[in-house]
Amino acid sequence: MAQPMPDEMLKNTKLINELADVAKDTALLQGVLMRIQETPNLSELVVYAPFTLFPTAVPKAIYHQALAVQTHYNILVDKISQDVDFLQETLASTIAVDDFTARLFRIHQQILKEGRAPSIALGINRSDYMLDQRDNGSLSLKQIEINTIAASFGGLASRTPYVHRHVLKVAGRLEDSKRILDNNPAAGLSRALAKAWELYGSNSAIIIFLVEKSQVNIFDHRYVENDLWKRNIPTKRMQFEDIYKMGCLDQDRRLFVNDQEVAVVYFRNGYMPQNYSSEQSWDARLMMERSLAVKCPDIGTHLAGTKKVQQVLARPGVLERFFPDQPQVVEQIRATFTGLYALDMGPEGDKTVEMALAAPERFVLKPQREGGEWRGAGACPS
Amino acid sequence: MAQPMPDEMLKNTKLINELADVAKDTALLQGVLMRIQETPNLSELVVYAPFTLFPTAVPKAIYHQALAVQTHYNILVDKISQDVDFLQETLASTIAVDDFTARLFRIHQQILKEGRAPSIALGINRSDYMLDQRDNGSLSLKQIEINTIAASFGGLASRTPYVHRHVLKVAGRLEDSKRILDNNPAAGLSRALAKAWELYGSNSAIIIFLVEKSQVNIFDHRYVENDLWKRNIPTKRMQFEDIYKMGCLDQDRRLFVNDQEVAVVYFRNGYMPQNYSSEQSWDARLMMERSLAVKCPDIGTHLAGTKKVQQVLARPGVLERFFPDQPQVVEQIRATFTGLYALDMGPEGDKTVEMALAAPERFVLKPQREGGEWRGAGACPS
Repeated sequence: MAQPMPDEMLKNTKLINELADVAKDTALLQGVLMRIQETPNLSELVVYAPFTLFPTAVPKAIYHQALAVQTHYNILVDKISQDVDFLQETLASTIAVDDFTARLFRIHQQILKEGRAPSIALGINRSDYMLDQRDNGSLSLKQIEINTIAASFGGLASRTPYVHRHVLKVAGRLEDSKRILDNNPAAGLSRALAKAWELYGSNSAIIIFLVEKSQVNIFDHRYVENDLWKRNIPTKRMQFEDIYKMGCLDQDRRLFVNDQEVAVVYFRNGYMPQNYSSEQSWDARLMMERSLAVKCPDIGTHLAGTKKVQQVLARPGVLERFFPDQPQVVEQIRATFTGLYALDMGPEGDKTVEMALAAPERFVLKPQREGGEWRGAGACPS
Repeated sequence: MAQPMPDEMLKNTKLINELADVAKDTALLQGVLMRIQETPNLSELVVYAPFTLFPTAVPKAIYHQALAVQTHYNILVDKISQDVDFLQETLASTIAVDDFTARLFRIHQQILKEGRAPSIALGINRSDYMLDQRDNGSLSLKQIEINTIAASFGGLASRTPYVHRHVLKVAGRLEDSKRILDNNPAAGLSRALAKAWELYGSNSAIIIFLVEKSQVNIFDHRYVENDLWKRNIPTKRMQFEDIYKMGCLDQDRRLFVNDQEVAVVYFRNGYMPQNYSSEQSWDARLMMERSLAVKCPDIGTHLAGTKKVQQVLARPGVLERFFPDQPQVVEQIRATFTGLYALDMGPEGDKTVEMALAAPERFVLKPQREGGEWRGAGACPS
């Protein structure tokens, strides 16, 4: 899409309504689905997941920039996850006030004290970007956040290229439809999980999808589950309480649930305080972290994804700690940084509000997930 | 599937419930969808279409028998559709009592009188079979009916092989899952329609899907529409009243709707009296039949699919009329005939009821679609 949709097309209400009908049916047929909020654990009534009618044009150079910098981000997350001192220093102030991060951190400390099992960790990270438009009209890539646990929509996003292609075709924009790139994150996710399963090395072991009680977004997961079944790798959906009730470690710290050996635990849960509804949830988490099973992610990677870490990374000299001899990598990562502004009560928060009200289109609000606070994270005003 | 599912598996309620959950989600993701009855013209809430948890085992020889005989059935329908005398003789008694068939027949007569446009007719027929089990346990193929207009579920059926394969895999029956054949009637339907479009010979002309007011089954159609769009053949969904209001014939009897030339009219409507909600519906039907556009099906093929024709075909000597020099073809078709029993008031109907009550498992009830009566069509007691 070299150009956005022309105004005359966007103003043609009849055409737009027709295209919306086609788009909805196409999304439904392609499996861009969610359960409904009223019955989150039944698949009797489903809806299409929210999506845009037309795709957003992304300049080619920015797209390739995002692809290139992602590898650096992944290495960065991995280094942080293993840097015990950095995590401790960085999270000290958060731990003091926030019980959720404190409990995660205690598990991390306990695992280190006991001696980590010689297990494999798998990181699946999702970086979220927005395009920042300068006054001169030029666009730049700004990262809003990186998700290191339970990142969603890799499944559903695998089907949206087809939806947009079809909508553009029906809109009479055949050439635009051909410009939409393939995108199959579900295949990437299952390839990564299959590799972890293979490295674990037991043909009879299963991959657990650790899921929440409310399973509105189950279809997003099913893509990855189905891809794994195609590879003849068995998967099971379980909740913390299933692990607690039916799970155990053998003397070699192999994890068994309901007498089945577990090769990989894939967290689609466990990123929010409310996911831990009881002490049993925490006991289950600890058991999994202690085990030989591959964790996706392990507790260190989970902690590396906290907003506090992202804030600290923006301070001078911090990226250099992780890439001491790679100034180009540091530069590429830093180029995508945006400001993270606190919305606390007090002078710092007041300044943020003032700035946001002056240019509201330049900000997004993001929850501080590990603490339940809210902070503003947006494109830095130039 | 050489064998049906073992009893111990069918009695394992927990497993069956788990498999049902997997099956529903798989069907939904594969697009085995319907709109809900409450909102048949909106795609805001959808459900999975009914399907069986496990596939039905069909002996290989019977499967190949069905494939082979279908070509003969298609030729038979085509011959009947063009045999003016046979249609007149056969339908005379129906026309006398049934207004719907009478009106269809009048259109047929009028087209003949005016001189048929040199147009192409496309037949898409769906034969429905059941397996008849004899007392000695042997199975035989029995045709229940043939649908020559608006036959449904070619789209949704294209996705069920995947659903059954996945369910069997999750059930631990990998070898059975490999035995399920591919089946893609949607591809066959769109290939046929594309061929008709190509033979019509105008690149800018469209294919009309003539649809009902209630569009609960829209997803079934969308498969075929989407396949045609992939071939860059434009389709539009229209109702009788759209054709009436916006349609016209030019001096060469080319059909235009809303200034767009129509290459093919694909009937997903028009098979039931209630589809003709006004005189406008009949006027629209006549206009389409008069036109150069390819009709799928044309009025003769529609009439050839009436139950009355099926009943008469079972009489001695009738098949021979259409295949005078092909006794083997006659034999192959006749081998699949079942009895068609009238349920009229009177001695014939009484006899049917008595027979049906004596062996209810050997009968199905089918509506006499052209008349709104009900008749029994079932496996002939041996």
